[in-house]
Amino acid sequence: MNYQTIFDTLASEMADVEDRGHVATYIEALSHVPPDRFGACLIDHQEAEYHLGDSNESFSIQSIAKVLSLTLAYRTAGESLWRRVGVEPSGNPFNSLVQLEYDGGIPRNPFINAGALVICDYLITEMPGVLDVILDLARRLSGNEQLVYSQEIAESERVSGFRNAALVNLMKAFGNIHNDVEAVLDFYFKLCSIKMTCRDLARTFLYLMNNGLQPGLNERIVTKSQSKRINAVMQTCGFYDEAGEFTFRVGLPGKSGVGGGILAVHPQHYGIAVWSPRLNAKGNSYKGMLFLEAFTTRTGLSVF
Amino acid sequence: MNYQTIFDTLASEMADVEDRGHVATYIEALSHVPPDRFGACLIDHQEAEYHLGDSNESFSIQSIAKVLSLTLAYRTAGESLWRRVGVEPSGNPFNSLVQLEYDGGIPRNPFINAGALVICDYLITEMPGVLDVILDLARRLSGNEQLVYSQEIAESERVSGFRNAALVNLMKAFGNIHNDVEAVLDFYFKLCSIKMTCRDLARTFLYLMNNGLQPGLNERIVTKSQSKRINAVMQTCGFYDEAGEFTFRVGLPGKSGVGGGILAVHPQHYGIAVWSPRLNAKGNSYKGMLFLEAFTTRTGLSVF
Amino acid sequence: MNYQTIFDTLASEMADVEDRGHVATYIEALSHVPPDRFGACLIDHQEAEYHLGDSNESFSIQSIAKVLSLTLAYRTAGESLWRRVGVEPSGNPFNSLVQLEYDGGIPRNPFINAGALVICDYLITEMPGVLDVILDLARRLSGNEQLVYSQEIAESERVSGFRNAALVNLMKAFGNIHNDVEAVLDFYFKLCSIKMTCRDLARTFLYLMNNGLQPGLNERIVTKSQSKRINAVMQTCGFYDEAGEFTFRVGLPGKSGVGGGILAVHPQHYGIAVWSPRLNAKGNSYKGMLFLEAFTTRTGLSVF
Amino acid sequence: MNYQTIFDTLASEMADVEDRGHVATYIEALSHVPPDRFGACLIDHQEAEYHLGDSNESFSIQSIAKVLSLTLAYRTAGESLWRRVGVEPSGNPFNSLVQLEYDGGIPRNPFINAGALVICDYLITEMPGVLDVILDLARRLSGNEQLVYSQEIAESERVSGFRNAALVNLMKAFGNIHNDVEAVLDFYFKLCSIKMTCRDLARTFLYLMNNGLQPGLNERIVTKSQSKRINAVMQTCGFYDEAGEFTFRVGLPGKSGVGGGILAVHPQHYGIAVWSPRLNAKGNSYKGMLFLEAFTTRTGLSVF
Repeated sequence: MNYQTIFDTLASEMADVEDRGHVATYIEALSHVPPDRFGACLIDHQEAEYHLGDSNESFSIQSIAKVLSLTLAYRTAGESLWRRVGVEPSGNPFNSLVQLEYDGGIPRNPFINAGALVICDYLITEMPGVLDVILDLARRLSGNEQLVYSQEIAESERVSGFRNAALVNLMKAFGNIHNDVEAVLDFYFKLCSIKMTCRDLARTFLYLMNNGLQPGLNERIVTKSQSKRINAVMQTCGFYDEAGEFTFRVGLPGKSGVGGGILAVHPQHYGIAVWSPRLNAKGNSYKGMLFLEAFTTRTGLSVF
Repeated sequence: MNYQTIFDTLASEMADVEDRGHVATYIEALSHVPPDRFGACLIDHQEAEYHLGDSNESFSIQSIAKVLSLTLAYRTAGESLWRRVGVEPSGNPFNSLVQLEYDGGIPRNPFINAGALVICDYLITEMPGVLDVILDLARRLSGNEQLVYSQEIAESERVSGFRNAALVNLMKAFGNIHNDVEAVLDFYFKLCSIKMTCRDLARTFLYLMNNGLQPGLNERIVTKSQSKRINAVMQTCGFYDEAGEFTFRVGLPGKSGVGGGILAVHPQHYGIAVWSPRLNAKGNSYKGMLFLEAFTTRTGLSVF
Repeated sequence: MNYQTIFDTLASEMADVEDRGHVATYIEALSHVPPDRFGACLIDHQEAEYHLGDSNESFSIQSIAKVLSLTLAYRTAGESLWRRVGVEPSGNPFNSLVQLEYDGGIPRNPFINAGALVICDYLITEMPGVLDVILDLARRLSGNEQLVYSQEIAESERVSGFRNAALVNLMKAFGNIHNDVEAVLDFYFKLCSIKMTCRDLARTFLYLMNNGLQPGLNERIVTKSQSKRINAVMQTCGFYDEAGEFTFRVGLPGKSGVGGGILAVHPQHYGIAVWSPRLNAKGNSYKGMLFLEAFTTRTGLSVF
Repeated sequence: MNYQTIFDTLASEMADVEDRGHVATYIEALSHVPPDRFGACLIDHQEAEYHLGDSNESFSIQSIAKVLSLTLAYRTAGESLWRRVGVEPSGNPFNSLVQLEYDGGIPRNPFINAGALVICDYLITEMPGVLDVILDLARRLSGNEQLVYSQEIAESERVSGFRNAALVNLMKAFGNIHNDVEAVLDFYFKLCSIKMTCRDLARTFLYLMNNGLQPGLNERIVTKSQSKRINAVMQTCGFYDEAGEFTFRVGLPGKSGVGGGILAVHPQHYGIAVWSPRLNAKGNSYKGMLFLEAFTTRTGLSVF
């Protein structure tokens, strides 16, 4: 499969598509991103890299970082992790409190905000200096030693993060948060503010394409079963209220962020990241979803 | 891969597992099924068949029939079908009215009861004698000319079907049901009462393993894209409130029924059906799910 | 207190008020009512009558009839009635299914549609020819022997009554409806189609002003305790999602209907009925509520 | 009406009633209250006092203090207050987040926790040193110069107050909280920790029996219209999820607290306070409600 040819063909096609999305504005610092950026990077099972557009420009990965925190928590806790968070799609907007109250403080899955906050709480308890631990892991997986989070964006998230504060307090009322509310929020906002390029993203999560073993590093990140299961959770829960739509149109497990990035994985074949800041009404990259749909249509391959 | 050896090994292992499930009783006629039956049948991409236990005994396929009605509607309507029903997981019990009211009468997906009822309504409008049409299709796909529905079970469902009647009436209030309420319910209950064996099931849905082309018949049932998309909807929505759990544990697109049957598909590899009447708390076959989890673990293969 | 003077003063004031309401259109036959009609009638504890405008023109009393059916059921069943329906405000739009599902098929109160349907079901079981029984009661209470229901409106309600059909079916699924769905709906739609004038209404419900004893007839309709409790339920539940607002602004127990009528009672003092067909966004008479607010403000008296 | 005779008769009757309630334990400091205390005090329109049992022992008035904060806010803001909080019953448990999210951050009424927190936020903005202001008002109204709040209980509430913190954060996300989250919570917990005796309570709220004018002080606390409207809101919203039940059984506007106190008002007749610490399942005093029901039954008078 000549991925580069497909990339180039799609690049010219996508250029003609009107971008109907809108840059996220509820986090003030995010709203400054140049809205017309577009980048993509694919790394295949032999570590060959394919690039398109702004693939080496870093951006705020936002919720894609939840795959990293889930990975770290899952390999530490094993299956006991699922006592505190479920694996079911939420069927509701991404930060709704309704479901959480109905389910007694147990978030539906680790990718909605509530679930990611519980994962953060778990990690704070388990590992001192957890922010450094997760940044070190991200640097090792991506091979990018300069990888950092944006203090400016983290602070901007805090200023508008009252809904997340409500989630943590509600879960603490239910006994599913063990640390101080502020400590959990602080780590969560910094985690979401990690900056990566498309290339960083595609490389970081290659272990999910490769049964848990990171190519290049030749290091086991998670077990084969865990790798499969993280992909499964991405498939059913990775796109907020649009998980079914992404599965339906793209057919790959993936995870999006409100910074406009999308990570997707075709197990045994490749990892791919795309970035386009304007979001559709459900909070996922408008052109990013179109690009990935066109890409799997063109290759004729998906997990289905 | 020697599927038969795996079947035989799992058979002896499963025999030792306590069945914590319970036979469905809300449909009176279903409660008479012998609870200890267990059967499985796998048909691979070369049409080789593998059997286990009661694989040739027919049972009520119940909601698995919704894959058949979706197939028929999708290939008739094309993508316009999705104006009347969504592709998102429901995140709620399988016959909840809450979500439907919130979403203005548009069911979340074609596999919850509300969605299947809309599909039935569409088919009644489009094809006269729709029950014969769908039975003919099932006979041709399965190669079983004797295939019928159970009049006794259909009537038993009607007697306890007030919740489904509520769903149809509510959707008619929203304008998403075009035919008489009773006509829609009548067709729906008969559809759910179709009886098949594990072998019938595995063979009927082989086109979903084969990009839409039915092996043996060499007939195109749906397009490649439609086949992929039906699998995608099964992956995210095929198990009521347990779709995430099935994806997480088994890793294949599939569909279950309260008769105790489960159909699953590994695209390009095989179709598989399993039957064990006792259900877990979420309404899916208790041993059926265990068996499929053990099977994909043993083969080491899933879509992820 | 010179009620007639207040009536006349308010009449000229109300004439200058822009009517921002809209005639109900979801029941086709209701939409033909002349929208500018306005009538009021007050009958005090000495049976003196005060009239204003179109007080002797009959209209569809709609949900106000639920006070009549509740009265008949309550005096028959006594306190056991409350096993099948509650006395709490609904806090939700008047025909929502959500609350009903949450509460296991027990409607919150007898004035939301679900609760009134349960009352109808109870009456059908208890008294053969219930429609004649309730019409006879209405004729005796009002002293209007010509009182009838409108067959045209009843049929028009049936045509658009799928949401009510959904409610009855859902409650039947929960076991809280004992008769045939169609029989319950048929009685309910006829009950809501009873026609009365403002004078009929004010007189019919005088027993609620008089501790359960109907003046003129000198007949006990309900016990003193029951009379007080029906008033209490009207106070907290009589105005759909606007019960608090009516209590806040008017300060009397009352009941409205989508035909534009409102009945209110000042215990020991008077019964009052007002009619103005245009409804506010919550489904209550726009000018009717304004008039009653101005009336209790002018008299300086309310239950509070 | 000889209130003392009724008090004495009911005292001996209530002594034989098994108390099926349970002392509130979610606030640790509240759980130490002697569970068998029982007191009542009635003050009539001529300021005559009637006492029963532990009527001069102080207890934590908890949510009854919300009538005081509403009074202070209402007379300051006038009708503009209702832009930030509604007057409709909640139809849901007393601290549910669901309704709040549905209604865009506007609490249903000033007596559910969310609404009382908004009132606190308003008061903090409007008056420096608001805690002293409200304590001064309580002392003047009750005539008890020693009246204080319990620092121990306020701190105990903070420790278990994560659900209230969730409410404030959620409302701040919607823009309906203007001050710091901690400042609002701090004032709210101290307000709820005010201690009064039954006599203090009955006297403090006499203005609600007297069209807004405080007897004895001869001071206007609120306008006649405001007094009526506060009573109206108590009638429909004063008892959490049991407002309809209290209205149905007792027939007076009132307000309860989880400390076991209940305040009720019969306009133009009397104010009454009762205290019995064991609560029913809905969080209202078990014997307190029984006592008030028996009392209004015996007097034969209520607002209905």
